[in-house]
Amino acid sequence: MSEVSQDDVSGWLPPDRLEWVRRKLPIVYVEAVPVRVDGAGNVAQIGLLLRADRAGGLSRALVSGRVLYHERIRDALLRNLEKDLGPVCLPRLPVAPQPFTVAEYFPTPGVTAFHDPRQHAVSLAYVVPVDGDCQPQQDALDLAWLTPDEILEPDIQAEMVPGHAALLRGALAYTGRY
Amino acid sequence: MSEVSQDDVSGWLPPDRLEWVRRKLPIVYVEAVPVRVDGAGNVAQIGLLLRADRAGGLSRALVSGRVLYHERIRDALLRNLEKDLGPVCLPRLPVAPQPFTVAEYFPTPGVTAFHDPRQHAVSLAYVVPVDGDCQPQQDALDLAWLTPDEILEPDIQAEMVPGHAALLRGALAYTGRY
Amino acid sequence: MSEVSQDDVSGWLPPDRLEWVRRKLPIVYVEAVPVRVDGAGNVAQIGLLLRADRAGGLSRALVSGRVLYHERIRDALLRNLEKDLGPVCLPRLPVAPQPFTVAEYFPTPGVTAFHDPRQHAVSLAYVVPVDGDCQPQQDALDLAWLTPDEILEPDIQAEMVPGHAALLRGALAYTGRY
Amino acid sequence: MSEVSQDDVSGWLPPDRLEWVRRKLPIVYVEAVPVRVDGAGNVAQIGLLLRADRAGGLSRALVSGRVLYHERIRDALLRNLEKDLGPVCLPRLPVAPQPFTVAEYFPTPGVTAFHDPRQHAVSLAYVVPVDGDCQPQQDALDLAWLTPDEILEPDIQAEMVPGHAALLRGALAYTGRY
Repeated sequence: MSEVSQDDVSGWLPPDRLEWVRRKLPIVYVEAVPVRVDGAGNVAQIGLLLRADRAGGLSRALVSGRVLYHERIRDALLRNLEKDLGPVCLPRLPVAPQPFTVAEYFPTPGVTAFHDPRQHAVSLAYVVPVDGDCQPQQDALDLAWLTPDEILEPDIQAEMVPGHAALLRGALAYTGRY
Repeated sequence: MSEVSQDDVSGWLPPDRLEWVRRKLPIVYVEAVPVRVDGAGNVAQIGLLLRADRAGGLSRALVSGRVLYHERIRDALLRNLEKDLGPVCLPRLPVAPQPFTVAEYFPTPGVTAFHDPRQHAVSLAYVVPVDGDCQPQQDALDLAWLTPDEILEPDIQAEMVPGHAALLRGALAYTGRY
Repeated sequence: MSEVSQDDVSGWLPPDRLEWVRRKLPIVYVEAVPVRVDGAGNVAQIGLLLRADRAGGLSRALVSGRVLYHERIRDALLRNLEKDLGPVCLPRLPVAPQPFTVAEYFPTPGVTAFHDPRQHAVSLAYVVPVDGDCQPQQDALDLAWLTPDEILEPDIQAEMVPGHAALLRGALAYTGRY
Repeated sequence: MSEVSQDDVSGWLPPDRLEWVRRKLPIVYVEAVPVRVDGAGNVAQIGLLLRADRAGGLSRALVSGRVLYHERIRDALLRNLEKDLGPVCLPRLPVAPQPFTVAEYFPTPGVTAFHDPRQHAVSLAYVVPVDGDCQPQQDALDLAWLTPDEILEPDIQAEMVPGHAALLRGALAYTGRY
């Protein structure tokens, strides 16, 4: 296992190892619902990423990513937000670790509202206002800002990564938009 | 009751009426723990107001105030923060109505951790990061920014308005500082 | 104001006084979503009361009531649950005062998701499992236990007291059913 | 990796594999603060386990355990509560996945309030009322039920597994005991 020492510092795992671990243990994720708020804290818009999915289609997604070894939740949130929205998105990270919900993704459909064929993930979810300039990064084709009314339209909901439609409805309920 | 029409719009009550109501109904309050946070959302400092109390002494207090008729919680938070910290304190108001706790102040001591001889108040409590310039207003003599370690020192705790010492410990626990 | 002394102990107000206060101050309410849970804490069913409404129709409602002067939130929850579901409903009252949401009912429609023409109410909302025998009381014509799927059907949602449809969706989102 | 198939179903890992994974990924835990409550939901007592620790001394602990592959949080809570308190402890599992806090245990001391030399653990913490008969199991020498006042005594706090003293103070603050 000579490769072990190589990834010690970074917290990253070689792909084959990660593949193996994903079938053995629940993996810790963070998910962020990026929002634009007005001066009174009302959610004006929600940011949705547009990505090419594995099936060759397009789907809309929230910010999501793994928590690395020796990484704090707030640092994982910051890293994943900057990875997806760019380095000057200026998120207002939560002051408390309490998430608004915990999404449990199971490789078997139907156990919870969340399904991920690759793994069992336990995902801590937060609503995160962003104040800075946001640009889609890397594999994202677009970043759309939609109002709560727009985002609850059935055609937008249908375009979302399955679990993220549920997570988004949960986030909106949490902010008082049911 | 000709005075009724006069205060209809403002949500304010004449002092004698408010006095009467305070013995008949629980009064809705908001309380804010103003904090300075770093870029990762860690609480660096907590703001404490220094006031002359009714007994002629000095005591330290959090931001606190009544919710007026036809005023939303977030607007009451904003109004009370600006009243105590000044018009450019720039609070990051909460995106969700869920408070970190509800403090129940009773006119009878010992019913809960909170006591207010004037009234029964039900107070929704929030931790609110402020980014702007803060200055003590009106009846406040000073505004001190203390680190979590400093604020948990027994001599500072002893200087606080009784319920606010408890509320502050609750706020710090909520942010992950126990 | 000789009637003042008469209602001092009970926390109740004479109707005309309450009417007046309701136009001057926000009134504190508690709302409970009564649920049947299985041994793992999953929500199996939600209890809905059927009432005759002011317009002469029927509507479905959650448990709801005012917090009285000098009454703790948990005591108000217990009193209102027993008032609506009967004295042996055996609720599992929340161990913490943090509500899952705060519903702000405004006399003006459209300010929030909640509207009450009679008053401005600030309502602390909790999901409360009940273990005992539940019977509709007083003005309730029926108590129906519906599964989360059944309760989200548009025809049931349309039968609900307006704010309660929103509150119920918020409660289900909180429990992980989006 | 023929041993892989053997532990596929159970979610358990062979000790050497788990040891390796613990240095590569954050591990998902649940922690429960078992409490006895009165009819109004007030916390009357907290249950503390007494265990022999690795250094040969005794220490007091809350209920804690790993979430296994393909195990839901509520099932992990139930399994760990029954493992530590016995099969008839009858816990009232939370109706919602939102924990009162998330404790981040780091192998490096001082990063957070929580330290675990063996691993990086992300632990979802819940206050769980138990109604049934509780008996210390397996490696626990005793189960003591203490009032909130008793448990906050410095000598009891000093006997606790380090992170659990902090977690307990957080749990009590959450329940309104600061």
